[in-house]
Amino acid sequence: MALADLVRIERNEDGIQAALGVLKQRFGERFQTGQSIREQHAHTTTYIPAQLPDGVVFARSTPEVQEVMGVCATHRVPVIPFGTGTSLEGHVNAPGGGISLDLMGMDKIVSVNAEDLDCTIEPGVTREALNTYLRDTGLFFPIDPGANASLGGMASTRASGTNAVRYGTMRDNVLALTAVTADGRTVTTARRAKKSSAGYDLTRLFIGAEGTLGIITSLTLRLQGIPQAISGGVCPFPSVEAACEAVIATIQMGIPVARIELVNQLQMKAMIAYSKLDYPESPCLFLEFHGTESGVAEQAELFGEIAGEHGGGPFMWTQVAEERTKLWKARHDAYWASLPLRPGARGLSTDVCVPISRLAECIAETERDIEAMGLVAPIVGHVGDGNFHVLVLMDPESTREIAQAEAFVARLNERALAMEGTCTGEHGIGQGKAKFLQMELGAGVDVMRAIKKALDPQNILNPGKIFSFD
Amino acid sequence: MALADLVRIERNEDGIQAALGVLKQRFGERFQTGQSIREQHAHTTTYIPAQLPDGVVFARSTPEVQEVMGVCATHRVPVIPFGTGTSLEGHVNAPGGGISLDLMGMDKIVSVNAEDLDCTIEPGVTREALNTYLRDTGLFFPIDPGANASLGGMASTRASGTNAVRYGTMRDNVLALTAVTADGRTVTTARRAKKSSAGYDLTRLFIGAEGTLGIITSLTLRLQGIPQAISGGVCPFPSVEAACEAVIATIQMGIPVARIELVNQLQMKAMIAYSKLDYPESPCLFLEFHGTESGVAEQAELFGEIAGEHGGGPFMWTQVAEERTKLWKARHDAYWASLPLRPGARGLSTDVCVPISRLAECIAETERDIEAMGLVAPIVGHVGDGNFHVLVLMDPESTREIAQAEAFVARLNERALAMEGTCTGEHGIGQGKAKFLQMELGAGVDVMRAIKKALDPQNILNPGKIFSFD
Repeated sequence: MALADLVRIERNEDGIQAALGVLKQRFGERFQTGQSIREQHAHTTTYIPAQLPDGVVFARSTPEVQEVMGVCATHRVPVIPFGTGTSLEGHVNAPGGGISLDLMGMDKIVSVNAEDLDCTIEPGVTREALNTYLRDTGLFFPIDPGANASLGGMASTRASGTNAVRYGTMRDNVLALTAVTADGRTVTTARRAKKSSAGYDLTRLFIGAEGTLGIITSLTLRLQGIPQAISGGVCPFPSVEAACEAVIATIQMGIPVARIELVNQLQMKAMIAYSKLDYPESPCLFLEFHGTESGVAEQAELFGEIAGEHGGGPFMWTQVAEERTKLWKARHDAYWASLPLRPGARGLSTDVCVPISRLAECIAETERDIEAMGLVAPIVGHVGDGNFHVLVLMDPESTREIAQAEAFVARLNERALAMEGTCTGEHGIGQGKAKFLQMELGAGVDVMRAIKKALDPQNILNPGKIFSFD
Repeated sequence: MALADLVRIERNEDGIQAALGVLKQRFGERFQTGQSIREQHAHTTTYIPAQLPDGVVFARSTPEVQEVMGVCATHRVPVIPFGTGTSLEGHVNAPGGGISLDLMGMDKIVSVNAEDLDCTIEPGVTREALNTYLRDTGLFFPIDPGANASLGGMASTRASGTNAVRYGTMRDNVLALTAVTADGRTVTTARRAKKSSAGYDLTRLFIGAEGTLGIITSLTLRLQGIPQAISGGVCPFPSVEAACEAVIATIQMGIPVARIELVNQLQMKAMIAYSKLDYPESPCLFLEFHGTESGVAEQAELFGEIAGEHGGGPFMWTQVAEERTKLWKARHDAYWASLPLRPGARGLSTDVCVPISRLAECIAETERDIEAMGLVAPIVGHVGDGNFHVLVLMDPESTREIAQAEAFVARLNERALAMEGTCTGEHGIGQGKAKFLQMELGAGVDVMRAIKKALDPQNILNPGKIFSFD
């Protein structure tokens, strides 16, 4: 993506300079304008070029977030919330400059209510930090995107991961949140009850809003009991289609699979080399089942039968924790395993999600396209949800390769839309997908714009994300 | 509730007369202004007095809904969507007059995608009609409010019911919807993929909006596979507290209970008499488990042990379908069973929902209040979610009794709020709870108002609901 494509927000130079002065005075050492810190806060993980903010505030509390918001509203300056910077769609870029609001200092676990299976945390807590903290309670938080992301960021991109087929996404696992809106007010979206019909669903409105409607300063999350028993394993298939058919049969039979992940042949080859796995170099499903001792054994056996009926197997599964851990570490390392497939390359990750009845067809067409274009692009997928990622490995310095990758992505997104799917299952729209969002939802985007305009009339909350301004 | 408390919307008499003329000409026999039809369309099930619309349009398609919306927008006339009229909070009342838009003629099941476990339907399909239609597919739609409501109405009030503890509420079971907005446009909120991060969650915005943001004309719903086996039964407890403790232990242990319903002593007495049940007259839990043959037996046995540890039992359970059906019919008939407790009375149903750690305390305090006031008011609860209903039986002609009931409800709602709960778990805000919503969410209500104003600047979509205009 050329930098020119990204910059659409005009800089309010006078306002920015005024805000920098005020924030410097107010936050002292917790306000930074050095090049390297600003670069780090526009770090975008993927190939999208960085667009630096003018300064970074390290906030420690909701009132501080309100203060920053107040200063920036007064001077009409963009505010970009920042967590771990692991988003894949340029969400932390500052196309019109402005202030990056680093929330990682807001990392308190405020309360854990074990009886209610919930907890309240600040947005800078990461998913791994939360699960480490919960270890002795018998509870865990299931949502696991690839990165050890902040929970505020995960809420803002409506993240999910490998467990979503069983436990849902961030949409389903946030009971309530507090956000500071563009006018500097603090809004709490719901109470701690497990369900509610109290007016508009503001919780869900802020989840996935990518920081464009407010800055999340607190989250109340649903927790799960750690299952009594877990079984899991790997099952090879002769083709991606056969694997997908087995997935459909498994879901339809109501087997409450906790994880069901597809790894295509090229990705499997990379993982075998990287993680020293002893599996065949063919498309595989990685699975996990949560339940009672007898329940997870029964589920694994049922799945093994289904796999056999679709030409797959043997399904090698285990209840031994160490073996499962090795397996899932290999799965989570898929990205790192892929890079040696093309040394020096950078990855561009796609994120389409389609109805599972169309999944086999969608992946097969995509694999043919990869082959026809001569791309190096392994595939992994949260196939229980119909969501898969192609990692296009390309030379970030080559205009030709970037153009080729963008053409491939456009075809993939359009293919998913034609199959009643979405261009993004879990990464969000950010900077790169505004035009596909328009193709996907049409008039719906106008409704989103109307809401954005009503809640942020100056367009200072993470401007240039979600919406294109063509 | 005195009628004076409800009427807050000034009638736009000229606009209404103009719209009536246009609609009469356009819809002929499918436009009605007779008293009895208008009365039926302001039927409010509970004690809230009816406020009649000026006319009723029986719509048959999305373009017709757009037409009605266009006429009403031109003449600034309220439009009130109507399904089965079984809402409990006066949602179908017309405080400023206007047009009731009856959607029950839009009752087509457009498609069932068995492989994807979803279907697309029109809003006038009822939950029972859908499940009857699905019978041969091995699939079902789990959300079951007491009434055989329309699915459009269920979405609009974010309804749930006895299965929500396992399958979630309407919030969790609508993949996408189409709505006609105040400016007459058709908006589709999402594609058919199981998850998405494509911009603001418009699906969730319309769910629970009570028809104040748009008229739902189509819904894509998630379906569930009919479980291989079901077990269920009734377990008596010495007290409501003991039953609630057993519920907490069950949820915390991760037993995937499909239904766990509390019936207090008075309600049990009424149900024993009405449904000829052979159970003790003490607080009881009604339970159901879904899974495999061995799984549901294991779950029932585990629950039996938990019940015993909390002084409850014996847990009498069965896998025999006829016995379970009798049991759940009795539970669903709880409302009708209650009425003979006070012949001639009308019921006022409350709907608080609290974190389950506070549930026992909330119900116990409420029972003491009922006793102190001498009310006849049985209790049933979806206790796995912390949600319970008190049915206050009162003489609708007695000003004193109405005032007494309203004072009781105010204390109950405030009690739930003080326990971090909500005034409504599944019935919605409607006309009666605007002031409790304000207490519950404060600044959040201002955000809701800003959205309402942005999307319906003339305030013609179901005005006078959710928001108070004091």
